Amino acid sequence: MNDDVRRAWAYLAAVAEPPCTPLIGLVDDLGPVEAANAIRSRSVPSAHRGVLRHTEARAATDTSGPDLDTCDRLGARLVTRDDPDWPAWQLLSLDRASTAARGGAPLALWARGPVPLPAVAERSVALVGSRAASSYGDYVAGMMAGDLVADGWTVVSGGAYGIDGAAHRSALAAGGRTAAVLACGIDRDYPAGHAQLLREIGERGAVLTEYPPGTTAAKHRFLTRNRLVAALSSAVVVVEAGRRSGAANTAAWAKRIGRPLGAVPGAVTSATSVGANAMIADGDAVLVVDAAAAVALAAPDGHDLKPESRSTAIDGLPRDQTLVLEALPARGGLTVDEIALVSGVRVADVLRALAGLDLAGLVDGSQGTWQLVR
Amino acid sequence: MNDDVRRAWAYLAAVAEPPCTPLIGLVDDLGPVEAANAIRSRSVPSAHRGVLRHTEARAATDTSGPDLDTCDRLGARLVTRDDPDWPAWQLLSLDRASTAARGGAPLALWARGPVPLPAVAERSVALVGSRAASSYGDYVAGMMAGDLVADGWTVVSGGAYGIDGAAHRSALAAGGRTAAVLACGIDRDYPAGHAQLLREIGERGAVLTEYPPGTTAAKHRFLTRNRLVAALSSAVVVVEAGRRSGAANTAAWAKRIGRPLGAVPGAVTSATSVGANAMIADGDAVLVVDAAAAVALAAPDGHDLKPESRSTAIDGLPRDQTLVLEALPARGGLTVDEIALVSGVRVADVLRALAGLDLAGLVDGSQGTWQLVR
Repeated sequence: MNDDVRRAWAYLAAVAEPPCTPLIGLVDDLGPVEAANAIRSRSVPSAHRGVLRHTEARAATDTSGPDLDTCDRLGARLVTRDDPDWPAWQLLSLDRASTAARGGAPLALWARGPVPLPAVAERSVALVGSRAASSYGDYVAGMMAGDLVADGWTVVSGGAYGIDGAAHRSALAAGGRTAAVLACGIDRDYPAGHAQLLREIGERGAVLTEYPPGTTAAKHRFLTRNRLVAALSSAVVVVEAGRRSGAANTAAWAKRIGRPLGAVPGAVTSATSVGANAMIADGDAVLVVDAAAAVALAAPDGHDLKPESRSTAIDGLPRDQTLVLEALPARGGLTVDEIALVSGVRVADVLRALAGLDLAGLVDGSQGTWQLVR
Repeated sequence: MNDDVRRAWAYLAAVAEPPCTPLIGLVDDLGPVEAANAIRSRSVPSAHRGVLRHTEARAATDTSGPDLDTCDRLGARLVTRDDPDWPAWQLLSLDRASTAARGGAPLALWARGPVPLPAVAERSVALVGSRAASSYGDYVAGMMAGDLVADGWTVVSGGAYGIDGAAHRSALAAGGRTAAVLACGIDRDYPAGHAQLLREIGERGAVLTEYPPGTTAAKHRFLTRNRLVAALSSAVVVVEAGRRSGAANTAAWAKRIGRPLGAVPGAVTSATSVGANAMIADGDAVLVVDAAAAVALAAPDGHDLKPESRSTAIDGLPRDQTLVLEALPARGGLTVDEIALVSGVRVADVLRALAGLDLAGLVDGSQGTWQLVR
């Protein structure tokens, strides 16, 4: 990526408060450099006029230089929608019309840590819950995180006090992979008491955020961040949650975008389990008692989500079929247009490839979208 | 009931280990006196030859005299299938072919206490669980039992240590109605430490058993007794249960005969909640956090199961229609033959009454059996 393009992406990543679906549409149409210029000059194509409103406040303020300097200084990177490190299919669920209105995909992600983002999201369970966790919640989060990473799963959470912190710490202590999705800039240690923890996650796992450097944590950003926690995980497990809890918001996102949702039960006398028990009672969440149950939720048919096992299945197929097959997620389905986007195969060739894969019994299009046959 | 008939019933109630479906068939065909004579003389009709095997061991031992003396001395009563105090429709579920093979209805019940058996069963919740309950389980059982009786529900349980005892005691303390179903004779205080508790239940609620006086508690009798706990309740709630628990057997009976099943969640770190959590996780039980949730389970549409509200609905109907409507249970359906049995209306008249009720939108026969329309 040349500097102009990188500067354009950094400008675009800051010019509208994420998520901003109209902005993504503009960038998809014009490319990042043209899109940035159009916004700066307030002269966007009429089809994208909606972008003006979202970018009005910040269009004249270009922080892309300092933002990229901060990023470099921290050893972080700016990952964009056209980057091989972009977790494309995991985030596709946020692109769908029904969810984009309330959330939408991120335009770019700022990330640090040795683990590539698609690898973070490939085989991962989100453990989320109250900041004001009980010792029971801390214990269960720690136990599950340790067992999950021992089994090769990534533990995704939000870096907060309470359940999040217990999950991250236990994953690190077990020598496993963990990812923290922030509601502030990659340069911010929030909460301050987790500065050391976030540093360790950044050294051994992944810290990521859609907010440009310097962005402070704010209430609406926690809610916006929660959709990424859900989207980047194969399943979401609420370990402990009171009657009102941010975890309920993450859980709602999991349901909305089709991620399996679990919850850990607790004593009916415990205020910190009211929310988790209610999710189970209402049929929104499956009761989960341990890491094995979380894995069963994330990979319900015992299908191993590791990339190597998927590639084994497609040896010897024509190239387009291979690309199309690899574009399909382990769970859920994609439309032909989405497959074309993820695979980079033209729509006409996607259709031809799907026909071949359907004949071979490898894909199924009977549910309205195309999905892998198990 | 004259003495000969009463003696015959007492003889029959002891001559086979319950449950004994073939024996019920014989008594239905011959009446109690003839049936008792046939068994004593080992000359049963060929259609009922199966009875011989079940009665061989005890046919020559007639304890009916002393059993009825014991019964009278305790202020107890022998309730038989032709008695107005027989909880007919609640026990019908045990008569069905699919369940009779493994359990079957009781031939008779020995009972003491001021509450008639149909009233015990009309609006009741069974609270069951481990004998080795934790203080958490004891607390929750007590809280739920107190709230249930305050709301006019009967609390049914098995009189055992642990959850059962906590539920009975709390119901009594709240001035409410509770019933204990025993796995031994009505004259036995089992467990011995609950002698005083069972006495109080017998004075203010109901103690009942299908076992004749003198019968000792035995493992198989607990399992057999559990089906009556389930059948006599509008819903069953497992408050606390370990991995292996008698409560799981009661829960299995609830599922088998179509009673709603709930379970109280507990910490995943608590051995005494493993069973209850598993029932919820497996989708066998609904997660129940309090008495209100148990009531919602027992009367899911808010339909008040009190007899008075049912009778209000049927004012002004022809007599046969009234009887047929009253024969139908609050939940589940009955066949025409079962309705004839419960209502005392001839099959031909049941069919005519159902046709009228169907036209009036009061019953629905589309599910293979006839049920009330809510």
